[in-house]
Amino acid sequence: MAVKKIKTKDKHIKNLATIVGDASSILYQKVDLLAYECDGFTVYKHSPKAVVFPKNTNEVSALVKYCSDNQLPFLARGAGTGLSGGAIPLNNEVIISLVKMKKLLNVDLENRLAVVQPGYVNLKLTNSISDKGYYYAPDPSSQSCCTIGGNVAENAGGAHCLKYGVTTNHILGLEVVLPNGDIIELSENGILDVPGYDLLGLLTGSEGTLGIVTKITVRILKSPESKQTVLAYFDRVDDGSQAVSDIISAGIVPAALEMMDKTAIEAVESAAFPVGHPRDIAAVLLIEVDGIAAGIDEQINQILEVCKKRNVREVREAKDEQERASWWANRKTGFGAMGAISPDYLVQDGVIPRSKLPEVLKRIEQISQESGLRIANIFHAGDGNLHPLVLFDARIPGETDKAILAGSACLQACADVGGTITGEHGVGIEKREEMRFVFNDEEIIAQTNIREVFNPKNLLNAGKLFPTPGRCGEIKQVMKEATTVS
Amino acid sequence: MAVKKIKTKDKHIKNLATIVGDASSILYQKVDLLAYECDGFTVYKHSPKAVVFPKNTNEVSALVKYCSDNQLPFLARGAGTGLSGGAIPLNNEVIISLVKMKKLLNVDLENRLAVVQPGYVNLKLTNSISDKGYYYAPDPSSQSCCTIGGNVAENAGGAHCLKYGVTTNHILGLEVVLPNGDIIELSENGILDVPGYDLLGLLTGSEGTLGIVTKITVRILKSPESKQTVLAYFDRVDDGSQAVSDIISAGIVPAALEMMDKTAIEAVESAAFPVGHPRDIAAVLLIEVDGIAAGIDEQINQILEVCKKRNVREVREAKDEQERASWWANRKTGFGAMGAISPDYLVQDGVIPRSKLPEVLKRIEQISQESGLRIANIFHAGDGNLHPLVLFDARIPGETDKAILAGSACLQACADVGGTITGEHGVGIEKREEMRFVFNDEEIIAQTNIREVFNPKNLLNAGKLFPTPGRCGEIKQVMKEATTVS
Repeated sequence: MAVKKIKTKDKHIKNLATIVGDASSILYQKVDLLAYECDGFTVYKHSPKAVVFPKNTNEVSALVKYCSDNQLPFLARGAGTGLSGGAIPLNNEVIISLVKMKKLLNVDLENRLAVVQPGYVNLKLTNSISDKGYYYAPDPSSQSCCTIGGNVAENAGGAHCLKYGVTTNHILGLEVVLPNGDIIELSENGILDVPGYDLLGLLTGSEGTLGIVTKITVRILKSPESKQTVLAYFDRVDDGSQAVSDIISAGIVPAALEMMDKTAIEAVESAAFPVGHPRDIAAVLLIEVDGIAAGIDEQINQILEVCKKRNVREVREAKDEQERASWWANRKTGFGAMGAISPDYLVQDGVIPRSKLPEVLKRIEQISQESGLRIANIFHAGDGNLHPLVLFDARIPGETDKAILAGSACLQACADVGGTITGEHGVGIEKREEMRFVFNDEEIIAQTNIREVFNPKNLLNAGKLFPTPGRCGEIKQVMKEATTVS
Repeated sequence: MAVKKIKTKDKHIKNLATIVGDASSILYQKVDLLAYECDGFTVYKHSPKAVVFPKNTNEVSALVKYCSDNQLPFLARGAGTGLSGGAIPLNNEVIISLVKMKKLLNVDLENRLAVVQPGYVNLKLTNSISDKGYYYAPDPSSQSCCTIGGNVAENAGGAHCLKYGVTTNHILGLEVVLPNGDIIELSENGILDVPGYDLLGLLTGSEGTLGIVTKITVRILKSPESKQTVLAYFDRVDDGSQAVSDIISAGIVPAALEMMDKTAIEAVESAAFPVGHPRDIAAVLLIEVDGIAAGIDEQINQILEVCKKRNVREVREAKDEQERASWWANRKTGFGAMGAISPDYLVQDGVIPRSKLPEVLKRIEQISQESGLRIANIFHAGDGNLHPLVLFDARIPGETDKAILAGSACLQACADVGGTITGEHGVGIEKREEMRFVFNDEEIIAQTNIREVFNPKNLLNAGKLFPTPGRCGEIKQVMKEATTVS
C-alpha cells in the first residue's frame, strides 16, 4: 500500500500524522470532517480540527502529550452513538478516534472477565462468548454498533440493567491515558475493592473529561439457564405504571421491565419491526424474567397476578426465542422508529422514583399540550428511567428550540419529584444547564475541582458536563423568559 | 439534669463544648480518652485531644468549621470496630464521634430505600424491617455493633456480599460535611445514575479522608423467599479451594461461600459457639443459597455435585433455621475465637482471583513456617477475599513486629498473583506501605491530588490511606532488610 502524503502546511497536522504513522490514519480536510461534526445528538454541529486514529495505547499517549504540550483542545470518540453530544468538538478539537483499537484481548472464563480495547463493539463481546454460555450484561439499544469505550465514558445502561446494573457495575479495571499523556492502570487484574479512592468509579461515566480509556476489563456473566418474556397491554397508562410499581414492590426483580405508550406504539408498528401491538392500546409493558428454570413460572405467575389487579386487557407470552427476539427488535429500534411518524425527534433521559411514574407521565402529557408537540414515551420503567421523545420538524422555524425547551421541561418534572436529569445518556452539551436542577453551586464546584485535578488545562473535552454560558443555555433562557411572559 | 462544667483552661475545648451544647457532650480528660486511643486495629495507640458528640448535621458542620479555622486536626468515628486503624488519632485529633446521631430517619418500602444517620447500627436496620419482609444486605461480622456511617467510610463487605455486593453497591445517597464545614447532598432522593462525576462512589470507601457522612440513604432488599445452607468438609485444602473455584465457574452464585481451615476450626470449636466441626478436617466450606423456593434444591444439588468431584468427605444440610443460625454464629465470631487459642492475633485482608486460591494458600502456609507463627484462614472464598489470621504473643519481645511482617508478606503474596491488599477492612494506617504493592507513584499521586481537592489543609484524618514515612513503614523496612540478610 502506498503511503499517503499529507496535503497541508499545518505543522500540527503533520506532527500528529507522524505520531500515528502516516496520512492514512488522520483526516483533516473539510469534506472528511463532516461526519465528525456531531454524534447521536444532532442538534449542534461543530467541525473538529482533525481526526486521528491511533492503533495502541502508546500512540494515544503520544497524541495526548502532543496536544497538551501544544495547547490543542482534544477529545476521544468511539462509534459516535452518544445521545447528549459528548463527542461534539465545541472547540475545534483534535478528535482521537478509538475505532482502530477494537480487539478482544483476553477472555478468562474461570475468573469471569474479559479484556477489550475501547473501540470493541458492545454486542461482539456477547456474540464471541455466548457459545460457552456467557454474556456481557449492559445492553444499550445501540449495542450492535456502540463501543465499550463509549459505554464506559457515558456509564451506559440498557433494558437489562434493571436486574444487572449499568456499565459501572460491570467494569473491573481500566487503563487510562491522563490528559498530560501519563498512562495509569486501575484495578489492573480485574480485582475489585481496590484500596484507595474509587478512581474506577470516578472515571466511569465522566463523559470523556478526565482521561481516555485505552483498555477495559469487564465482568462477564453466565447466561441464564432460562428466560421468559411477556407483553402486557393496558387501556390506561396509569394502570400500566401502577403495575410497574407493584411488581417491584412485590419483591420481583425482572431482568427487564420496559414500557411504551400509544404514540410510541404507533411509531414502532409503522417502522421496520412491527409485531402486531394493538393500535388502540394506551400502554404496553415488555417484561422479561430469567434465572434457574425451576423458578421462572412462579415469577411469571406473580407478575401476571399483579397485572390482573391493574386491569390488564391482554397478556401474550413469547412462544419461542424467535418471537422473543422480534419483540426486542421492535423495542430496541424504538427511537429510530420515530422517523416513521415525525421528521425529527429529540430523546430525553430523566429518572424518577418508580412510585412517581403516574404523576410524571401526566406532567409530560401536559408539557406536550403546552408546547403543541407530540411526546412519545419509551422507557425502562422498572428503574424509573424515562425517555420522553419530543417529535418536531426542524424545517419549521423555531420548532427545534421549542422541542429543546419541552425536553428541558420534562427533566424539570423529573427533578421536581426528587428524580434526576440523566439515567444513561449523560449530560454532554445537551443537559449542561439542567445540571442546575439537581446541583447547587457548591456541588458543581466540588465536581469541577475534581476535573481540574485530572485536566488542569481543560484541553480535554472542554465545555461538557457542567453549566457554562453558551448557545444551548441562551436558547433555554430566552425560551423560558418567553414562556414566563406569555 | 445539671449542666456539667468544663474543667480545663484550653480555649478550644471550651469552644468545642459550646458548639455541642455543654460538657456532657465532650470528653477531654486523660482517663476518658483511653477508650479512643485505637479502634479494632489495636497495634498502635495514640491519644486524641478530645472526643465530641454532635447531635445533628449542623453541629458536625460547626465543629468541622471550628477545627478547620483553628488548624486543629480532626477525624470522625463510629463504633470503632474498624480493623485497619482508620479511626486512630495519629495527630492528637479532635474525634467527632457520631454515636449520638443514631436515628432511623425514614423507610420507603415502595422505593426500596431507608435513610439513616451515620451512628445507626448496621443490624438494627434489618431487624426493624424484617417483619415486612425486607433486609439490608451488607453484613460485616461486626454488624451487631458497627455503624452504617463506618461501613460507608470503609466500604464494608460481609459474607453475603458475594451475591449482593459490598456497601458501595447499596448506597443510594449521602449527606456529607466537607472538611471546610460545607454541607453537600449527593443523590439526595436516592435516585442513582446521577449526572456528573460519581462523588457518591468516591466518598464511599474513602476512609474518612474526604468528608464526614451525616446522612445515608441505603437500598433495602426483599428478603429471599427461601434459603438453604450446607457445610462441606474436605480432607485437603486444595480440594476445598478447587471446589470454590468450580462452583463459581459453573455459573452458580451462592449467597455466601465461606471457608475455614484447620487452625480456624480449632479456634471456633474452642470458643463460644462450637457446632461440632470434625477436628481432623483440613477445610470446611459454609455455603448458602437463596432465592425463589422452586430453584433452591437445583442449586444445592449442583453444588453438591461439584463438591463430590472434589472428594468432599462429608456434607451437612441445615435442618432448620436454628441450626443455620448456629453455623453463622460460629463463623461470624471466628476472628474473636482466635483468643481461645492465641494471646493475640492480627487479621489481614487480601483479595485474589479465585483461580489462585490453592496457590496463595500454599504460600501463606510457607509464610507461617518461615515466620514461626501459626496462621489461621477464615475467609470469603467465593469472592477471593482472604483473611489470614496471624497468631502471636505480644508479650514476647519482637513477636508483634514479626506478626506485622508476616501479615504484610501475605498481602505481597496476594499482590503477586494479580490480587490486591484489602477487600473490606480498608488501608487505614495498617496497610499504608502495602499500597506500593499495587500502585505506582503516578497512581498514588492521582489519589492524593483528589484528597487535596476536598481536604486541602489535610486536617481531616491525616496520615491514613497513603504511604507516608512513619513507625509502621520503618518496622516493615527494618524487618524486610533483616529477612533479606538472614
